[in-house]
Amino acid sequence: MGKKITLALPAKDEVWKFKKYVCRAKLLDLRGGKPIVILNQDEAHQNDIYMGHRVVLQADGRKTYARVDLSDDMVKIGEIGLFGEVADELKVKEGQAVLIHHTGRPESIEYIKNKIDGKELAPPHMRKIIDEVMDDSLSEGEMAAFMSACYIRGMTDNEVVGLTDAIVATGSPFHVGKIPVVDKHCIGGVAGNRTTMVIVPIMAAAGAYMPKSSSRSITSAAGTADTMETICEVSLPIEEMERQVRKVGGCVVWGGAINLAAADDKLIKIRNPLSLDPKGVLLASILAKKKSVGAQYCIIDIPIGRGVKVQDAKEAQALARDFIGIGKRLGIEIEAMITDGSEPIGRGIGPALECRDVLRALENKDHPHDLKEKSCQMAGVLLELCGKAQKGRGYGIAMQLIENGKALAKFKEIVEWQGGNVKKLTSDSMDGRIGSRHHTVKASAGGKISHIDNKLMSKIARAAGAPADKGAGIFLRVHRGDVVKAGDSLFDIFSESESKLDFAIKALEGWEAVELEKVVLDRVR
Amino acid sequence: MGKKITLALPAKDEVWKFKKYVCRAKLLDLRGGKPIVILNQDEAHQNDIYMGHRVVLQADGRKTYARVDLSDDMVKIGEIGLFGEVADELKVKEGQAVLIHHTGRPESIEYIKNKIDGKELAPPHMRKIIDEVMDDSLSEGEMAAFMSACYIRGMTDNEVVGLTDAIVATGSPFHVGKIPVVDKHCIGGVAGNRTTMVIVPIMAAAGAYMPKSSSRSITSAAGTADTMETICEVSLPIEEMERQVRKVGGCVVWGGAINLAAADDKLIKIRNPLSLDPKGVLLASILAKKKSVGAQYCIIDIPIGRGVKVQDAKEAQALARDFIGIGKRLGIEIEAMITDGSEPIGRGIGPALECRDVLRALENKDHPHDLKEKSCQMAGVLLELCGKAQKGRGYGIAMQLIENGKALAKFKEIVEWQGGNVKKLTSDSMDGRIGSRHHTVKASAGGKISHIDNKLMSKIARAAGAPADKGAGIFLRVHRGDVVKAGDSLFDIFSESESKLDFAIKALEGWEAVELEKVVLDRVR
Repeated sequence: MGKKITLALPAKDEVWKFKKYVCRAKLLDLRGGKPIVILNQDEAHQNDIYMGHRVVLQADGRKTYARVDLSDDMVKIGEIGLFGEVADELKVKEGQAVLIHHTGRPESIEYIKNKIDGKELAPPHMRKIIDEVMDDSLSEGEMAAFMSACYIRGMTDNEVVGLTDAIVATGSPFHVGKIPVVDKHCIGGVAGNRTTMVIVPIMAAAGAYMPKSSSRSITSAAGTADTMETICEVSLPIEEMERQVRKVGGCVVWGGAINLAAADDKLIKIRNPLSLDPKGVLLASILAKKKSVGAQYCIIDIPIGRGVKVQDAKEAQALARDFIGIGKRLGIEIEAMITDGSEPIGRGIGPALECRDVLRALENKDHPHDLKEKSCQMAGVLLELCGKAQKGRGYGIAMQLIENGKALAKFKEIVEWQGGNVKKLTSDSMDGRIGSRHHTVKASAGGKISHIDNKLMSKIARAAGAPADKGAGIFLRVHRGDVVKAGDSLFDIFSESESKLDFAIKALEGWEAVELEKVVLDRVR
Repeated sequence: MGKKITLALPAKDEVWKFKKYVCRAKLLDLRGGKPIVILNQDEAHQNDIYMGHRVVLQADGRKTYARVDLSDDMVKIGEIGLFGEVADELKVKEGQAVLIHHTGRPESIEYIKNKIDGKELAPPHMRKIIDEVMDDSLSEGEMAAFMSACYIRGMTDNEVVGLTDAIVATGSPFHVGKIPVVDKHCIGGVAGNRTTMVIVPIMAAAGAYMPKSSSRSITSAAGTADTMETICEVSLPIEEMERQVRKVGGCVVWGGAINLAAADDKLIKIRNPLSLDPKGVLLASILAKKKSVGAQYCIIDIPIGRGVKVQDAKEAQALARDFIGIGKRLGIEIEAMITDGSEPIGRGIGPALECRDVLRALENKDHPHDLKEKSCQMAGVLLELCGKAQKGRGYGIAMQLIENGKALAKFKEIVEWQGGNVKKLTSDSMDGRIGSRHHTVKASAGGKISHIDNKLMSKIARAAGAPADKGAGIFLRVHRGDVVKAGDSLFDIFSESESKLDFAIKALEGWEAVELEKVVLDRVR
């Protein structure tokens, strides 16, 4: 009997090893702190080299590695622009030939292609994709294709768990070494929603451990990290964060400064350009941050309503179930809370203004009522979840910790550990941190307030300088349901400079950030 | 009766107008021929600015535009690197503040998002996407997301027609002013498949008009434009191309040099990184080139088999039907031919080697038999389609035009119009153009040849220097079905330099470019 033997095609990876080309050195009078070359974009793309890839360079028997920047204009076809560091290493002169060698086609491109084709990605493939995202092997286009595929195809639970584990693996290990470890997360989109800064001291005061890492603002007027930064440091080394949480029970730090779930920042950047938020990536990105601090119990705040990310209760419930299910597989007990996100929380929007609201809530002042109320409801659920309160008693305990001043004392302890000066720290003391230029926006007509737009408020506060200018932002004088007359003050815009204040006022033109429910009688004639 | 009036949310476009930020000028000792700035990648992305975007710059009352390059390293956060041209225009000094203002979020991002969400894109939306691809408003990531969405979601006929028209609209008008205007296209993937250079002179000799624009090689050893360039110019101004086709009946030029369907080149670049070839984009890209030269009749060569783009007859038939259907809506009568693409056509692979094959076919030499045969079969179909031959007579007429030397004479006329010297142009004269360094690859065992791998042959020819080195490539001494003994010559590698020849030989190691069908008897014991 005869047997037909045919040889396998060469592996795709092998074929890619061919990619080499030669360019003439163009010495750039620039140094970048690390080896960088600039390649002509068209020529690089033809050779499968993309922005951020690594290349091997050879000249005259010397060899080195460099990161690729691309330009259409700076270097012509046939040229390679060398930063000082690279020119030194290769010892090449202007015009000398340099062999450019692709370090190889990233392995994960194959897996991204599989995802595009609708196949399920196994954990090691997810891991490879994240590893290659982390070491800058993938181009912007390749990463965007991956996000688009996750968005369009959706992700299985296995894939979400695989992605979460892959993200966690990119971070540094973190161990509080005490229990219970709790955490919270908010899906976002609500201006002024600074519950974290109220919940953390409540939980710590109740004996739980809450290693909270927060984000800086991406599109809003302030992230929790921006707001906390008004009064103390938020960039702590991971060891200090560990020590603080062990001793004090909590912290509020900027996640970007520590290396807990390093891939997450990069994934946010990839999602951003097209505002693609594949649900599975969102889940993994959030839960990786929880898992990497060792959280055992976690609450998720899902605000719904006009203008926030999640539009209706049905969508929110589905998302809640996803969180709970994936959480279970990751060993995190989760409770999700669907909250009203249709108007800003508190009265301030912008770092210092929001920080004043937080202090007022912890000082048990009457206003802003909504921030204190929401924070205590959430802390209550978390207290019950982690066993620090009996069922039905959580909210009462949280409120009590505010009323007896223990949450405020704990908050000051946290601020002090993070390098802040708490001697004269009160909500009133924050007045001095708020921008000196201001403008009051008044109602052009009378009526009942039907909507206060989160996005628009954030944009105006940003135009006024927030979050970089800590004192910039908005102070809301009204809430939804209030009845106003023409000429009544609606909100104040604060800014640290006259020009930014003007910019914010100009930005407001033609829009109604505070909308009225106008009741018009039919005309009779 | 009361009416509830609520105001519309501000349009997304409006919100984006807020994006402005200030950086300190870093003057770069570089000039790019046009205004370029380098922004810090992270900071730019945060402000929704991506590679290639346009920005408005303001400093001290002066204002200018520039194209954006990005770098992680060259400029820090808070810095803007200015090329000489920009610094001159703004008259700024080192460290001076520059206001960076996004010219606006590209409108087409909304449409790309719609496509991602599974909505059908109307012709004006397709048009906007292509226009913004053309003016560099879209980032690599945005374009990759569009391609991924077209690939995963698929495209409706309406979308393909809309995309085709949008691509055609980016080109310059072209009018032969005579009829019939014919064209051909090959889906590609077959090494040495230079039928175009044989078909064009046959069609022109028969009285049809064939304004053929061809591509340069992207991943193969030679494109038709590379091969034609061995003997004449292929970069003609569009007016000369028009004049030539009107007078001579045909041309073979490089599509990249003319502006017939300008968007197409860009689309190829976008598809390339992930090798995504959404069928609808492929159809539009090909048919736009046909429509833009005013083709009325067109044949499409769809090679199938192992190692080429289309794997089987079923897939090829579906693709053929798509071509015919979309063609009808565009006013182009199309006939598709499904051909055997499982081994190279002709004996040469690489510009000069393929050009020799073309000349041998036109000179009516016995070999390479397959190139002449395939070209005449295709020309025959096209002759019948455009009315220059009765049904069933096309092949005979094509063969006759080769036998009576009219096709060769027409070919020389075309080459001469394109600036080539035809006095001593024969297939034998091409021998002098073939690389002087060569290496013969021999069979390591005996047997019947079962497969000659197109991709691997192309890769070896590329490693030897093709297509940039016109004389580099491969000469096949065997075809599938031939029986060889151990030590028989299989193919020669030609190169213009010893080092590239070595590189090609090394590249071959461990692979079997020519596979044998080994017949092994069962062992009896």
